[in-house]
Amino acid sequence: MANKEIPYKIYLEESEMPKYWYNLRADMINKPAPLLNPETRKPMTAEELSPVFCDALIQQELDETTPYFEIPEEILNFYKMYRPAPLVRAYCLEEKLQTPAKIYYKFEGNNTSGSHKLNSAIAQAYYAKKQGLTGVTTETGAGQWGTALSMACAYLGLDCKVYMVKVSYEQKPFRREVMRTYGASVTPSPSMETEVGKKILAEHPGTTGSLGCAISEAVEKATSMPGYRYVLGSVLNQVMLHQTVIGLETKTAMDKYGIKPDIIIGCAGGGSNLGGLIAPFMGEKIKGEADYRIVAVEPETCPSFTRGKYAYDYCDTGMICPLAKMYTLGSGFIPAGTHSGGLRFHGMNPILSQLYDDGLMEAVSVPQTEVFKAAEEFARVEGILPAPESSHAIKVAIDEALKCKETGEEKTILFGLTGTGYFDMMAYEKFHDGKMVDYTPTEEELQKGFSYLPKMD
Amino acid sequence: MANKEIPYKIYLEESEMPKYWYNLRADMINKPAPLLNPETRKPMTAEELSPVFCDALIQQELDETTPYFEIPEEILNFYKMYRPAPLVRAYCLEEKLQTPAKIYYKFEGNNTSGSHKLNSAIAQAYYAKKQGLTGVTTETGAGQWGTALSMACAYLGLDCKVYMVKVSYEQKPFRREVMRTYGASVTPSPSMETEVGKKILAEHPGTTGSLGCAISEAVEKATSMPGYRYVLGSVLNQVMLHQTVIGLETKTAMDKYGIKPDIIIGCAGGGSNLGGLIAPFMGEKIKGEADYRIVAVEPETCPSFTRGKYAYDYCDTGMICPLAKMYTLGSGFIPAGTHSGGLRFHGMNPILSQLYDDGLMEAVSVPQTEVFKAAEEFARVEGILPAPESSHAIKVAIDEALKCKETGEEKTILFGLTGTGYFDMMAYEKFHDGKMVDYTPTEEELQKGFSYLPKMD
Repeated sequence: MANKEIPYKIYLEESEMPKYWYNLRADMINKPAPLLNPETRKPMTAEELSPVFCDALIQQELDETTPYFEIPEEILNFYKMYRPAPLVRAYCLEEKLQTPAKIYYKFEGNNTSGSHKLNSAIAQAYYAKKQGLTGVTTETGAGQWGTALSMACAYLGLDCKVYMVKVSYEQKPFRREVMRTYGASVTPSPSMETEVGKKILAEHPGTTGSLGCAISEAVEKATSMPGYRYVLGSVLNQVMLHQTVIGLETKTAMDKYGIKPDIIIGCAGGGSNLGGLIAPFMGEKIKGEADYRIVAVEPETCPSFTRGKYAYDYCDTGMICPLAKMYTLGSGFIPAGTHSGGLRFHGMNPILSQLYDDGLMEAVSVPQTEVFKAAEEFARVEGILPAPESSHAIKVAIDEALKCKETGEEKTILFGLTGTGYFDMMAYEKFHDGKMVDYTPTEEELQKGFSYLPKMD
Repeated sequence: MANKEIPYKIYLEESEMPKYWYNLRADMINKPAPLLNPETRKPMTAEELSPVFCDALIQQELDETTPYFEIPEEILNFYKMYRPAPLVRAYCLEEKLQTPAKIYYKFEGNNTSGSHKLNSAIAQAYYAKKQGLTGVTTETGAGQWGTALSMACAYLGLDCKVYMVKVSYEQKPFRREVMRTYGASVTPSPSMETEVGKKILAEHPGTTGSLGCAISEAVEKATSMPGYRYVLGSVLNQVMLHQTVIGLETKTAMDKYGIKPDIIIGCAGGGSNLGGLIAPFMGEKIKGEADYRIVAVEPETCPSFTRGKYAYDYCDTGMICPLAKMYTLGSGFIPAGTHSGGLRFHGMNPILSQLYDDGLMEAVSVPQTEVFKAAEEFARVEGILPAPESSHAIKVAIDEALKCKETGEEKTILFGLTGTGYFDMMAYEKFHDGKMVDYTPTEEELQKGFSYLPKMD
């Protein structure tokens, strides 16, 4: 199909939007390992999970056989407020690079939370509401997830308590205000509101907090208040399930115009956006119906796929969450302070971990200065100012397009542009002022992280 | 046509996008008064304007008879990167208000500049490039225009020098960084780079600057460097011409679904977004083909329509720009420091001024606390976090919808949602903390402003 026939932006009709989420596990030959109870080391049951999570979400978390979950009408209606997300042909980037490659990106930033996080936030808030709950608690680091959840809760009239890592709370006051605009209560973590918060503050007065601590506070709060549950923005299989709306829309749009990607690229933190983007393509690959190169891009400061171990580990530093088998750097691994807050998680979604272990996808790690260089190059020609996280995918997409320039191959490259960088301008400022540095963890640091892995008999 | 058949968001196909800008002046019975040379008091000629503005833009500025200007293909291609903008049916707001009214808004914030400003920025940059110029200069207050121009210049490889009001430069460092990401040089104004800047700094050491001063610096810079011209983001007729892409898209989308608005509402600062939105509807109204209520909404702190005079005045406080006949509060009028930087201009576009004087449109002024209340209510149900400027239109749209609730009338309300408020969170914070106040200028303050009006013989 000639270039001219493909619009700059492909928007599906509302009638073409996905009506089901796709549960990739149903088509996987090697299923991901089950979540384990950290005390008994036996698979977690729905009953054991129910004080923490909403019932419907527990079902989605544990289900390995149902291939499709119907998206409830209320969620579909919410999706219609900011979806379908455009699939964009990066004509201007192609021209700038002088590459024969065809580059497409699925842009998830056209909503106030600024990212794909809203896709799962509305689903989790919906099931909480349906269960008759009063509210939900969560943690947020960079703030995209907290914003998304606040928006979803405001829409449904659900209370929303966000524990925001103290350093972010102070450095990103505008993120905090967005959440307040949507009626959420935002507490800097660690706080005096929870036992775990008090304990941490007593032991480490003046600490600026961590995601692990914020998770612990949010979980404690949820389980200690009637009518509340805890929700999470990535890592879990349920989150990846909701995010398949990204890949399903992309596939429908590509099929409509007869486009078949050769390479699919996504940034990987907890893995939900990458998993959501690739799911329908990976399904075809597993079933032998098509072949795609699938590439996960992670920061070199937090290389769970490329330098981590495939092992059972805690999802949080407080070690109160279930054990998940995943590529991990150890729950005590502390990544260097880079500017991609959304990619600083020590582990990786269990489904993606299994797929990676099975050789069905690749992974690569990149330094942040190169990521920001790619981000700026992209912004200048394509208009959109990307989030640092998303720019990891841009960096590798550009690399692949330049390889095509050398070889003359007309490959079709698809990448996920998960969000915008409006609240990351402090990082861009550092980059412009030449003050941004790169960091590769030493072998020693990695070994120290692995020492936190639980001993499994 | 039943509600169900109208999607949440109407996106035109690329083939349906406007290929012409509409010059409303061609259909006006009473033409707007011409720009005057401040020294001779005679109509400005193209020759007199050419040291300051690009030649093609001068033609557009002065042309009162050509009804349509073809949009050059390069600009159309750029438009395709972020347009068509969605026309959104505010189903959720309607439900929240329990109104029988049907509310639509045209959302112009889905681009990195965050507003409609990009529509004219790319046009002005294009004509500068086509004339073989090296670069352009401009001023920016709140920063939306500077961002938009930076994006357009980055795309075309044109140099861009932005004079940013010093107080904004310091209070909005992230806006500044967005411009730097797009390669613009951003100078806090007043600066030592220009004669006028030096003079002001000598007279008022420690001044935090003003839009009027920044305009003067930008104009001086443009006229003192070979290959540069000055460009402006609102007020001028050429800017309103480019912004008609908003109204033309809206009209096409509404016609496609058989929707006819009863009331059209837009916020009014310099007037370009309002003028752009209403142009095709006003054209029909003038020709007697249809009738619409058209409402301009301005802040009560800067009420040029509702409390100003229709008179010849300077567009800048430095009194170096041409005289324009417009509704004005006087070029020396200093509005109270509200949070809608984009609506703090003392005058109003000459075309809109004539239409208002002819009774073809209404105007209303609103206090900012009510505007933020409406903004928050809108954000919670419709998702989008609106700019304070745009929220003036939301406030009045809600008021009109509530009137319909009382009377039971099923009116169709259309308003322009010009942009997002991501860089205005400091204002939202003040609102949340109950620290935002309203201010109505006294008669004395207005009279002082009018005393700056030039005496016309």
